[in-house]
Amino acid sequence: MGNIKEMEDAFLEYLNEQNALREAITLIHWDLRTNIPKKGVEQRSEVVGYLSQKLHQMQVSDQMKHFIDELNGKTENEIIQKSVEECLETYEKNRKIPEAEYKEFVMLQSKSEAVWQEAREKADFSLFQPYLEKLVDFNKKFANYWGYEENIYDALLNNYEPGVTVKTLDDVFPKVRQALTDLLQKIQQSQVKPSTDLLQTTFPKKDQEALSIEVIKRMGYDFDAGRLDDTIHPFEITINLNDVRITTRYDEEDFRTAVFGIIHEAGHALYEQNINKDLEGTPLATGTSMGIHESQSLFWENFLGRNKEFWESHFELFKEHAPSYFNEVDLKDFYHAVNVVQPSLIRIEADELTYPLHIMVRYELEKALINGEIEVKDLPQLWNEKMEQYLGVKPSNDREGVLQDIHWAGGDFGYFPSYALGYMYAAQFNNKLRETVDVDEVIRSGDFSAIREWFTNHIHQYGKMKKPLEIIKDVTGEGLNPDYLIQYLTEKYKDIYKF
Amino acid sequence: MGNIKEMEDAFLEYLNEQNALREAITLIHWDLRTNIPKKGVEQRSEVVGYLSQKLHQMQVSDQMKHFIDELNGKTENEIIQKSVEECLETYEKNRKIPEAEYKEFVMLQSKSEAVWQEAREKADFSLFQPYLEKLVDFNKKFANYWGYEENIYDALLNNYEPGVTVKTLDDVFPKVRQALTDLLQKIQQSQVKPSTDLLQTTFPKKDQEALSIEVIKRMGYDFDAGRLDDTIHPFEITINLNDVRITTRYDEEDFRTAVFGIIHEAGHALYEQNINKDLEGTPLATGTSMGIHESQSLFWENFLGRNKEFWESHFELFKEHAPSYFNEVDLKDFYHAVNVVQPSLIRIEADELTYPLHIMVRYELEKALINGEIEVKDLPQLWNEKMEQYLGVKPSNDREGVLQDIHWAGGDFGYFPSYALGYMYAAQFNNKLRETVDVDEVIRSGDFSAIREWFTNHIHQYGKMKKPLEIIKDVTGEGLNPDYLIQYLTEKYKDIYKF
Repeated sequence: MGNIKEMEDAFLEYLNEQNALREAITLIHWDLRTNIPKKGVEQRSEVVGYLSQKLHQMQVSDQMKHFIDELNGKTENEIIQKSVEECLETYEKNRKIPEAEYKEFVMLQSKSEAVWQEAREKADFSLFQPYLEKLVDFNKKFANYWGYEENIYDALLNNYEPGVTVKTLDDVFPKVRQALTDLLQKIQQSQVKPSTDLLQTTFPKKDQEALSIEVIKRMGYDFDAGRLDDTIHPFEITINLNDVRITTRYDEEDFRTAVFGIIHEAGHALYEQNINKDLEGTPLATGTSMGIHESQSLFWENFLGRNKEFWESHFELFKEHAPSYFNEVDLKDFYHAVNVVQPSLIRIEADELTYPLHIMVRYELEKALINGEIEVKDLPQLWNEKMEQYLGVKPSNDREGVLQDIHWAGGDFGYFPSYALGYMYAAQFNNKLRETVDVDEVIRSGDFSAIREWFTNHIHQYGKMKKPLEIIKDVTGEGLNPDYLIQYLTEKYKDIYKF
Repeated sequence: MGNIKEMEDAFLEYLNEQNALREAITLIHWDLRTNIPKKGVEQRSEVVGYLSQKLHQMQVSDQMKHFIDELNGKTENEIIQKSVEECLETYEKNRKIPEAEYKEFVMLQSKSEAVWQEAREKADFSLFQPYLEKLVDFNKKFANYWGYEENIYDALLNNYEPGVTVKTLDDVFPKVRQALTDLLQKIQQSQVKPSTDLLQTTFPKKDQEALSIEVIKRMGYDFDAGRLDDTIHPFEITINLNDVRITTRYDEEDFRTAVFGIIHEAGHALYEQNINKDLEGTPLATGTSMGIHESQSLFWENFLGRNKEFWESHFELFKEHAPSYFNEVDLKDFYHAVNVVQPSLIRIEADELTYPLHIMVRYELEKALINGEIEVKDLPQLWNEKMEQYLGVKPSNDREGVLQDIHWAGGDFGYFPSYALGYMYAAQFNNKLRETVDVDEVIRSGDFSAIREWFTNHIHQYGKMKKPLEIIKDVTGEGLNPDYLIQYLTEKYKDIYKF
């Protein structure tokens, strides 16, 4: 088997080269979103284009096909076998799209994002409409190239959450929606009316930063393998497994944006920082799906960061960093204020109870679009109707309606459901975690390592060695189950709103 | 000539691809020196290695040779012709070194820098000696591969300052040294004893930064095409012509480090920001030599930043940003304090008068090393002797002696003279500039555009379209001439030290 060994080494070397391009491209993206002076962007975009093309060429090359053919099912090295499978998927997915069409799509993507930005500023959907129509058409075509069993939209879902289908979602989403709207009704009828007014005071950026850094250090975020920077739209980005960066936006009049945002991004980062380092340089060295990734960020943001025990044991830490104004604020009022439920128009500003409803609006619309059941031109009206139906609020213009998110402008359809899936996964993990870890005690101790380690053992370390549904099954012993999320939200908000 | 046109386009495309790699590598270097978390460095180094190798392969490829053969002397496009010449030089220089030897050298370089760092910390030259011996040997071998007319060291000088030879330097350096040691003697005998004590007060970083930003904006540094960051060892770096970044190190107990440092790096940056944008993507889109580059940084740092008129018209601006302590300081005392002449051990901390003497110590030693006239093992002693002879100070250990600079550890021989050449060029330019621009009046106006424009017209715009000696000749009508520097320093220090 000397030949296999040589082939394996050559394959790993080929992966390393791709990884070098990926790492350079990723650093450029980080820089584009944090540092780059505005005049430098144009030339930099050409550079990204060139490097991405090189990477793409390697992924679909005959050389790659040769490695796959020679190694698939023949190597005894598990990391190599899984890498081969991953490469095969990428190879096939890309090979199925005619090169000319893919190029056209990539050009349309970047053009569309710019047009979307303008349309959003002007709150004028009609500018964006012709681009979105083309993007939807491309997604339909691609979905057909890729193939599917039941619903064309499944082919797109598969890009973000392999194994999850329209059937999966249509099984759980209505149940979640019903439960959430019921809860929302009880909350709105409750005599308890917590207010966020008491949170409103000027909180200097540097103090918000110091507080957040202290919290994410307790979570286990490793600043020797990452950093925190300012940006407009916060994100986590993995340049390599020892360089996992997060960013945030500070609002000095509302500390929640940065503090909960940093905890959220650090949740993503903990996943990436704790992937087995043996996977570095292979396509397995990343989170296994968008949904599992989101389960990590949402766990830390909500199940820890908005937790009662957390605030009871960390209010003193908060006050050490916060303006002295908070010395007069009552802990219970504070806890209620950071958990106020209030239907609103903007997804990324939504509270944890109404958040999934925002996702369902998007899911239903994009599923219908891809299935040809509705037309792009009708989106603004349909959006507004659904918002009113699910959340009881209605956008007064397209900026706070259908134009608020960038995903569609980037050509991404099938992505949104991951946010809601991640939330359900997080609740399932939270439930399982509490069977063996005394979470309240761990929180009180101020050192959250036991929680982080549980996630590392069960999820993080595997990177893409396990598929998302395999993770869920191995960790919880069952499949996707929305009951845990419903139960969590019911208990939490019963306690707060006394219904 | 249809074929030529196609060939030209293909060549420009090939250059663009190389430029994409260069831009990615450059951004990685910037990141390595400003941002990267320490655990991320190891993997990142592999990435740089891979991308650099790809770039190198393109520079010496048969494809490149083909472009050169088909276009050299045949294209009528001047930018393409000059690019071809530049590529030919790189091609030949790299092709002359056997690949195995070059690889060995690259590995030795990075190893040596790490060893040098340790040796420097421990002030123990013997650790570094065996590495330096190999580095000197490699440089000798390379110099022989590249070839030279009179002195083997010329082959190395040519890498940094094409056209300048040992003969050039040996013609001017003794004269400069004599003049500087004479001046130094007079200064030391003078009754005037300015003190830097009055500069010593705590000057908050953010105020130093605000002051420096105001000054470099007046110089014309474009923050829409650049940025200023913190680092340990300050530098200017050109990611692309619209993304020219500078860095600095702040010492709150001595504002001179950052303030003069930022002016210096901004001088480099003005050069790069004002290169003709038509050169972007070609190897001509950078400063033409180390010496000309240094003339720009030194002009702004010394000829403007340490100028009497500058402080007379800008002391108010300084005091607006400086601690109130400075309100009590006398302008004349202040001006003298930032121009104190005091022989010292460390090159980068030297005053503008003794600085060239530090360069000469290095030049004489490396010239003798490459010519086999002295041995590496004798360097510490020879260094100390020369320091005592030229500057009258003697290092008490190798850290403040022969181990202070990184250049030799990086395998760079022939680089140091550029610092002194740049200084002489700066004085020549300063003299010429003043023939047509009323520099004192421009300084008083607080808007230095007229100076920046003069440099752009005469130097910046050309990038590498002109060789350094061509620039000097075109701008000043003569060759390298040390008299202007000697005259500048004589007049300035006569005025300060009253001799």
